[in-house]
Amino acid sequence: MASPYASLKEEAWEANCEIPVRGLALYTWGNVSAFDPRAGVFAIKPSGVPYPDLKAEDMVVIDLEGKTVEGSLNPSSDTPTHLVLYREFTAHDGALVRGIIHTHSTHAVAWAQACMDIPLFGTTHADHIQVPVPCTPYLSKEAVERDYEKETGDLIVDHFRAGKLNPDEVSMVLVGGHGPFAWGASAAKAVYNGAVLEEVARMAYLTRQINPGAKPLPDYIVGKHYSRKHGPNAYYGQTCR
Amino acid sequence: MASPYASLKEEAWEANCEIPVRGLALYTWGNVSAFDPRAGVFAIKPSGVPYPDLKAEDMVVIDLEGKTVEGSLNPSSDTPTHLVLYREFTAHDGALVRGIIHTHSTHAVAWAQACMDIPLFGTTHADHIQVPVPCTPYLSKEAVERDYEKETGDLIVDHFRAGKLNPDEVSMVLVGGHGPFAWGASAAKAVYNGAVLEEVARMAYLTRQINPGAKPLPDYIVGKHYSRKHGPNAYYGQTCR
Amino acid sequence: MASPYASLKEEAWEANCEIPVRGLALYTWGNVSAFDPRAGVFAIKPSGVPYPDLKAEDMVVIDLEGKTVEGSLNPSSDTPTHLVLYREFTAHDGALVRGIIHTHSTHAVAWAQACMDIPLFGTTHADHIQVPVPCTPYLSKEAVERDYEKETGDLIVDHFRAGKLNPDEVSMVLVGGHGPFAWGASAAKAVYNGAVLEEVARMAYLTRQINPGAKPLPDYIVGKHYSRKHGPNAYYGQTCR
Amino acid sequence: MASPYASLKEEAWEANCEIPVRGLALYTWGNVSAFDPRAGVFAIKPSGVPYPDLKAEDMVVIDLEGKTVEGSLNPSSDTPTHLVLYREFTAHDGALVRGIIHTHSTHAVAWAQACMDIPLFGTTHADHIQVPVPCTPYLSKEAVERDYEKETGDLIVDHFRAGKLNPDEVSMVLVGGHGPFAWGASAAKAVYNGAVLEEVARMAYLTRQINPGAKPLPDYIVGKHYSRKHGPNAYYGQTCR
Repeated sequence: MASPYASLKEEAWEANCEIPVRGLALYTWGNVSAFDPRAGVFAIKPSGVPYPDLKAEDMVVIDLEGKTVEGSLNPSSDTPTHLVLYREFTAHDGALVRGIIHTHSTHAVAWAQACMDIPLFGTTHADHIQVPVPCTPYLSKEAVERDYEKETGDLIVDHFRAGKLNPDEVSMVLVGGHGPFAWGASAAKAVYNGAVLEEVARMAYLTRQINPGAKPLPDYIVGKHYSRKHGPNAYYGQTCR
Repeated sequence: MASPYASLKEEAWEANCEIPVRGLALYTWGNVSAFDPRAGVFAIKPSGVPYPDLKAEDMVVIDLEGKTVEGSLNPSSDTPTHLVLYREFTAHDGALVRGIIHTHSTHAVAWAQACMDIPLFGTTHADHIQVPVPCTPYLSKEAVERDYEKETGDLIVDHFRAGKLNPDEVSMVLVGGHGPFAWGASAAKAVYNGAVLEEVARMAYLTRQINPGAKPLPDYIVGKHYSRKHGPNAYYGQTCR
Repeated sequence: MASPYASLKEEAWEANCEIPVRGLALYTWGNVSAFDPRAGVFAIKPSGVPYPDLKAEDMVVIDLEGKTVEGSLNPSSDTPTHLVLYREFTAHDGALVRGIIHTHSTHAVAWAQACMDIPLFGTTHADHIQVPVPCTPYLSKEAVERDYEKETGDLIVDHFRAGKLNPDEVSMVLVGGHGPFAWGASAAKAVYNGAVLEEVARMAYLTRQINPGAKPLPDYIVGKHYSRKHGPNAYYGQTCR
Repeated sequence: MASPYASLKEEAWEANCEIPVRGLALYTWGNVSAFDPRAGVFAIKPSGVPYPDLKAEDMVVIDLEGKTVEGSLNPSSDTPTHLVLYREFTAHDGALVRGIIHTHSTHAVAWAQACMDIPLFGTTHADHIQVPVPCTPYLSKEAVERDYEKETGDLIVDHFRAGKLNPDEVSMVLVGGHGPFAWGASAAKAVYNGAVLEEVARMAYLTRQINPGAKPLPDYIVGKHYSRKHGPNAYYGQTCR
């Protein structure tokens, strides 16, 4: 009998296959999940399986209590982080998060290891988010001892709350000493945002090497570029979202 | 019935397909147009369409008033910038500009974000232009509020006038905080100059990392290298242009 | 008649073929060996043969006295280094080393040439080893004059002893002024660790460029990440090793 | 009738085709020649022809007076530089130079633009040459005005004489403000040395970024590594050259 989650698993699988195509992770160092808010479940990559070996039916379906609803393989060890993010970031009306990616992409990791926000230097960045890419502090010793992956999710959520950041608009984050998470309106859009983050991280690194005193892009250009692609008067692409 | 712009659209399409081949843009972050000065129109990439999905017939044909002459898709959101450049840079006898490219290529963007001209350090650069690659200041608040993409074109034109730069000789520019534009005697030549700019940007970045006090190439070598490839006594290639 | 070492040679061959796939060496600048502790022999790449030309039967089988047991080609000139490492690192019960790789991968070589340990900045590193990647001093003049490649092995062994480093846990090293060696529970795992080392070297380089004062990852996160993948309570992957 | 230079042209053609494979030049920014000392001629790439369009019969055969002996296309504009190097570097008994490459490979150009020798930091470098990669000063104004490409050859020859460098041992050079030339016992070996130079340039750049005070490799290791691959007691590879 066909799985009721077949299309969700297919979406998650396709998005995971995109990770090596976009050069976002070596070996198995990245995972994507796809979320169905009506069913209250997400499909995620199984742990430690190389991308070329993945099949859509290998995806593991998890509900928002963390229970495996379908699938015989171990889900990604980062599953509790995805779970927290879906639970917290989609708990309001009109929430947009439907996919999450975690990778160890090189330049994003370098900023995370430097424990620094990525400055907003140009329009490539402003086309996607209107603020520097936030970087959380390290997890505390207590949090690591309690429940590492769940606490990583809580750390991100707390950092967004403290900074008054809206996850429907700020679709990416660095976890200090660890690496990037990104999300979007679908699993494919999450991968896109993961690739954007890596490229923005690389450009910002180069910008500061060239000019250590480089200044942030003025606010009035940031706002213009963001609204070209997002919001009620967007005019980029063929259908305005 | 066949379009009167079929070959112009074909030229624009082929040039756009070259963007990912040359690694000049992720996703849809770049566009090329091809200009026909006799017809007074240019063909440009439609907005937001991935390169592998592009077809020659998708190209949008625009006249110098900005009216869509042929094509059912939205043209690139950067169309008004292309329009200004064609109008201003080809308004004199013997004008050479027949193609324009805009991308977010990594190292060129880094210099644009650093708001710095790219110094002329070597013959790779001098083979193509005889001055540092110019970088405009940021657009002003007033300009952004008026008409962002058109004003980007005006900013480039004003910067060339103020600096007494000849667009028939200086075929590339950085827009401060944004990224590169380049042009040439055809759409293919524009892509070539876009790739030259990215490589020159990368080499100049590395040169200053190795030697922060690196000096510009002496003028007498600059002139020699440029005239090897350009001008009446050019002797590079099989037919001297 | 079939070689008794056919499967060992096959393992070594497959691992050597992975070197160019992972971008770990130009031309012939890297070699992998596979060790069979019961037979007391290892199979290693022949010297100077390009990877695309390699065949499994070309692998040279060497015993722990350094005698060629099977094979008509010259073994890698680094064979005496492999030999010392197998002899010393597998001389205790429960030893895990079954494969060794040596390459000149770019970023690992850069740290080796800088004569510096690679700091442990993040979880990508901590997932694999719990300490900075150790870098030996240069070989002494006397050692070079005695027996260069054997002494390179002795240098690594002495450095591990002096630093109380356990080769079953610390699976990689830089030889000062030279480059990386890595090892693992199989030849394939050795290549994996060689690729990890190159990526960790690149990330640490970028981290310090971004933030010259970047701090090491706190110990409590290091321990947590390492034990996710290793040790009795590992929970990464499909079967916990 | 078959050309008496068919095999020389074939050798030059194959070596030119290797330039894009090794990533040593964009577009047509590099050329290789193959030299036949008995015939006193060399075969070189025609000017401005893209590598994928090259055919063996397109190679242009030039004698040591600079006369075209065979071929209907214009030879590379760098032909007079190749000519000087063959004439000067092969004028003694036992001369080894049989092929020359010139490219604009990225990291080698960056050092040339920085006008700095590439320090000898490690064994990757010492495996190939025993001294820093020499960098000439800029060409003088008078030399540029006389005969640019010929004078570039003279500049290299003078720099080797002044520095008592032996071109049979030091197979690569940077021309200040311009880029790399390399050579070897065949056109293929010249390309190999061009690729070595690019990788050594990249590694040395990274080494100094990581440790601005990095020290040169001690002489006793330099000599050992060089003699492993070269000279009477070489023991690298399958047949010692």
